[in-house]
Amino acid sequence: MDNNNTHGFPLLDKIASPADLRRLPVTDLEKLSSEIRRKLLEVVAANGGHLAPNLGVVELTIALHYIFNTPDDKLVWDVGHQGYVHKLLTGRGDIFKSLRQTNGCLGFLSREESPEFDVIGAGHAGTAISAALGLAVARDRRGSREKVVAVVGDGSLNCGISLEGLNNISEATKDLIIILNDNKMSISQNVGAIPRYLNRIISGQSYNRFKTFMKNLFKWIPGWSKVIRKISRLEEATKSLLVPGVFFEELGIRYIGPIDGHDFQELIRTIDGVKNFRRPVIVHVITEKGHGYPHAEAAPEKFHGLSSFDPDTGICNGDGKDGTTFSKAFGMTMEELAEPADNLAVITAAMRSGTGLKEFSEKFPGKFHDVGIAEEHAVVFAAGLAAGGIRPVVAIYATFLQRALDCVFHDICLQNLPVIICCDRSGIVDDGPTHHGINDLGFLRALPNLSILSPKNETELRSMIFAAWQHPGPTVIRYPRGSSGVPFKNDTPPVEIPWGKAEVVKNGNDLAVWAFGRETQTAVAAAKILEEKHGLSATVVNSRFLKPLDEKLLFEHAAKMRIVTIEDHQTRGGLAAEIDELLINAEKRQIIHFGWGHDVVPHGNTSEIRKAYKLTPEAIAEKIAAAQTQ
Amino acid sequence: MDNNNTHGFPLLDKIASPADLRRLPVTDLEKLSSEIRRKLLEVVAANGGHLAPNLGVVELTIALHYIFNTPDDKLVWDVGHQGYVHKLLTGRGDIFKSLRQTNGCLGFLSREESPEFDVIGAGHAGTAISAALGLAVARDRRGSREKVVAVVGDGSLNCGISLEGLNNISEATKDLIIILNDNKMSISQNVGAIPRYLNRIISGQSYNRFKTFMKNLFKWIPGWSKVIRKISRLEEATKSLLVPGVFFEELGIRYIGPIDGHDFQELIRTIDGVKNFRRPVIVHVITEKGHGYPHAEAAPEKFHGLSSFDPDTGICNGDGKDGTTFSKAFGMTMEELAEPADNLAVITAAMRSGTGLKEFSEKFPGKFHDVGIAEEHAVVFAAGLAAGGIRPVVAIYATFLQRALDCVFHDICLQNLPVIICCDRSGIVDDGPTHHGINDLGFLRALPNLSILSPKNETELRSMIFAAWQHPGPTVIRYPRGSSGVPFKNDTPPVEIPWGKAEVVKNGNDLAVWAFGRETQTAVAAAKILEEKHGLSATVVNSRFLKPLDEKLLFEHAAKMRIVTIEDHQTRGGLAAEIDELLINAEKRQIIHFGWGHDVVPHGNTSEIRKAYKLTPEAIAEKIAAAQTQ
Repeated sequence: MDNNNTHGFPLLDKIASPADLRRLPVTDLEKLSSEIRRKLLEVVAANGGHLAPNLGVVELTIALHYIFNTPDDKLVWDVGHQGYVHKLLTGRGDIFKSLRQTNGCLGFLSREESPEFDVIGAGHAGTAISAALGLAVARDRRGSREKVVAVVGDGSLNCGISLEGLNNISEATKDLIIILNDNKMSISQNVGAIPRYLNRIISGQSYNRFKTFMKNLFKWIPGWSKVIRKISRLEEATKSLLVPGVFFEELGIRYIGPIDGHDFQELIRTIDGVKNFRRPVIVHVITEKGHGYPHAEAAPEKFHGLSSFDPDTGICNGDGKDGTTFSKAFGMTMEELAEPADNLAVITAAMRSGTGLKEFSEKFPGKFHDVGIAEEHAVVFAAGLAAGGIRPVVAIYATFLQRALDCVFHDICLQNLPVIICCDRSGIVDDGPTHHGINDLGFLRALPNLSILSPKNETELRSMIFAAWQHPGPTVIRYPRGSSGVPFKNDTPPVEIPWGKAEVVKNGNDLAVWAFGRETQTAVAAAKILEEKHGLSATVVNSRFLKPLDEKLLFEHAAKMRIVTIEDHQTRGGLAAEIDELLINAEKRQIIHFGWGHDVVPHGNTSEIRKAYKLTPEAIAEKIAAAQTQ
Repeated sequence: MDNNNTHGFPLLDKIASPADLRRLPVTDLEKLSSEIRRKLLEVVAANGGHLAPNLGVVELTIALHYIFNTPDDKLVWDVGHQGYVHKLLTGRGDIFKSLRQTNGCLGFLSREESPEFDVIGAGHAGTAISAALGLAVARDRRGSREKVVAVVGDGSLNCGISLEGLNNISEATKDLIIILNDNKMSISQNVGAIPRYLNRIISGQSYNRFKTFMKNLFKWIPGWSKVIRKISRLEEATKSLLVPGVFFEELGIRYIGPIDGHDFQELIRTIDGVKNFRRPVIVHVITEKGHGYPHAEAAPEKFHGLSSFDPDTGICNGDGKDGTTFSKAFGMTMEELAEPADNLAVITAAMRSGTGLKEFSEKFPGKFHDVGIAEEHAVVFAAGLAAGGIRPVVAIYATFLQRALDCVFHDICLQNLPVIICCDRSGIVDDGPTHHGINDLGFLRALPNLSILSPKNETELRSMIFAAWQHPGPTVIRYPRGSSGVPFKNDTPPVEIPWGKAEVVKNGNDLAVWAFGRETQTAVAAAKILEEKHGLSATVVNSRFLKPLDEKLLFEHAAKMRIVTIEDHQTRGGLAAEIDELLINAEKRQIIHFGWGHDVVPHGNTSEIRKAYKLTPEAIAEKIAAAQTQ
């Protein structure tokens, strides 16, 4: 970091809105970018967040607000996790220090937080082109002239929605600017033909191929060197048609680039130049993830999104603790399975590290497929593998699995193929509404042939994966971010998980708490409080399966005592729903459900959110005790 | 039809499997294709089905089974509605006459119907490339050499999954053949930049552009005409690099074509030629939808999928009856709304006719957007329009809305944008498992901010659309295929639909039947039987809203009498689930739910399926009466 020793933010502090920015001379922008980098580092080091993506777009964001007349002109940021600089320039400097904290500044863009500048919120990748196209058509319909600019990462470009959007642009509007923010990465290293195509552009391979073609052409022509000057003019005129952006040109979109995304002069000159095109245009901007902070430049995947860290050393506060997370246990179990299982394939959609598969991918490259941000393809590809006799395991976050609902239904469940889907980040996470995994059971539960499991801890996750491996139909195993707190053990054979059977963790007579997944820990803790504080003896059930649920045991319990459910999911559509539907006509005591409500759950520290929603063991025990004594 | 007067199927009858086909001399294939066309016409005229797509692929399907060693080599048909010829050639000639009938031959491909030849089933568009890639990688892993061939329509190509698949091919395998079956249509006329690109290829515009470039180049060169022969050789060598398939070539896929899909010689020579490529290849085959049957050639959209018709005149048995369907009422209401509402936009994803929007699209082209088979983009585009002040209405079939679940959640509901989604074909349809709309409520009900309505008939659909137009948040209105049987009236102002209030259709004292949507008719009919045959007096409630449900009325009823629910949806996740969750702890009589079960509902005549599942008014009344007298 250049200006690491400088203190204060003299330029940044004066910018209450982009209009203030636009009053600065161009010569001040470098200094402003240094201040912003320091601010980013300061806040993200303290609060955690998406550091590298934001360090990469400091100059680009400044340039966009400098060139365009925001908020009249509209900026649409794909994903929005790279919107911190945008926040700092659009009147949110004050709240930025509360980034990602409960009741603080959201880590993504949101219409609620800034109706003026966050014209459409996001959190999932790939939607900016389609949303911006909608805004552009709305503008055209109003007969208005403001600019609409979508900023899209190269990782998002091979997402199906982006490509569907690209296909639709040229017939919908003549006036749309796409900034392709190309850092050659999604979260992990980018994969696929489109990223490779972009890399060929950057490295000049397409252009070189064209040159070779020209040279071959002219060696047939006598005295060709004499006409080279004239030809070079023609070449100039035609090369933009033929190379390097022909892929986009064929879709009716003018391609400009590539340009250096950390060079203010080049950024401003180029983007200002395309403002008045009467044709959709894509400007290919090369940025470096983590730019200006050596630790992040060296390890952009680690610094993509992370918890708090020491800005001087780059060491995360979580580093070195040897608690095994569910993700890590998943990755280790895949390694264990891969050794004997020649027919295993593990698939992820740009979530290699997040799902715990980094080591696996290095040890078993032939059994690993990262298909990029393409959840639908990931699931259908798995279906094809399964139809071909391979046993695929697909690892996707719960919130992103929503992208592939139809494929899970149409290509896995209706075909009744033995695909295992490991649904990571189920339950709430600190990222907020776009990332909470609290809808998955609602849409998965209705799908035919599908089994749905959730483990109480990492060791049981391993056993469940081994059980699912023996199961002939499609299976989803859901588990939350982080760990159960129980040490992971994989040095003994996995325990047997009888299909559709719950595990009774503890016997009691006054009530039965049915918990799904890690919430079994919450149930055990609540039961302890009930016993010690209220003299109530609770049965605790680790449901293990939502589908097929252990109905026999449930009815036995319902006949004897109150049923209570706990799940890290909405109370709509998940365990509560399944049990209500089963027990609706049964004789029973009043049922109590614990889980998330039907409204939007905000972002913030997950422990604090649990407290606020009264989902701690203490609050749960309190409510149960009150009901029992009524 | 050439051989319309010929009788019998001497060649076709001898083909019990593709091996028999491969024993025929090439010279017999023309005759076979005539027999197959006659067979298709005979069966589809009687049973209804997808005629035009199948007439278009007669030669192509014969050629593929002739060239490839099926079933060792694998054919993957996108969508599968063009798989009738494939069925006729793969041992299903006998059951083909029962096409689409209850317990008969499915109108799509299915692993259950032919594990050997239908290697992966489908019904939704865009999955073939990804599934075939999975099969190819599985083959590579086994060290096997069989061919994998995906047959994809041009309409499917701009679907996000197809594009995600294309992006992933070149790094996953060296051996995959894609047949691009280009009839320039999806269901309706094709739209978007990719189809336009394909059309440019076909019409030679890309190639012409290249020629112009060459001409411009050479006019600078003295005496260029002398070298033209040498250049033409180079041109030949380079044109395939630069034109016409550069879009695919840039993705690492060899492009071959276009070729005539009705010319056996060209088909066999070309496809046989690419068999031994050690690189993924796309063969661009031009076919004509409806080929060989003049009525279908003239009106391919009508003959895409249709009910039974007179093969001589092409007149559908449904034509001329002036019953208004829900789809038609939707289209008419859009026209009514469009006149005064300057800010209306209507969006569909290649379902223009099916959703009743043909007339609308012709009268209000500026307010109509068909984005092609791209449901995700359709929904996000609508979000952008809404953020820009336009009021979008998106019309999609229930089963295809599954594709866009995440976009409905992330881009509409979380943003709380006033988008109206009209969910056509909700409930069962005769097409079968892939097309039944019986999951939609399960995944929609959990989404925040979303209202969910369903009208009892077409006239109420109009009123609901007007009510939703006044509602500030996102709204889904679901309705089934076909009609309610009640004449549509739009000559008086729409009735008011108070938000979240149910309509009591009939008062009674013994039980309350809560019905959702058109099932209100079923409830009324059942109530009549209950009264006349069993002396039971039933309240009938048109729930109108699933969300927000009229809880107050529900609790009033539950306190007084038995609650019964009827819905054209699974009993999981829809009205039954909502009511169970609300009443779980209430004092009540035993609740009875009517709806589809949790397993796969088969295809066939919907009335017959209803009978088999005991969901007719008679069967419903019977079950209720039995419960009441217990």
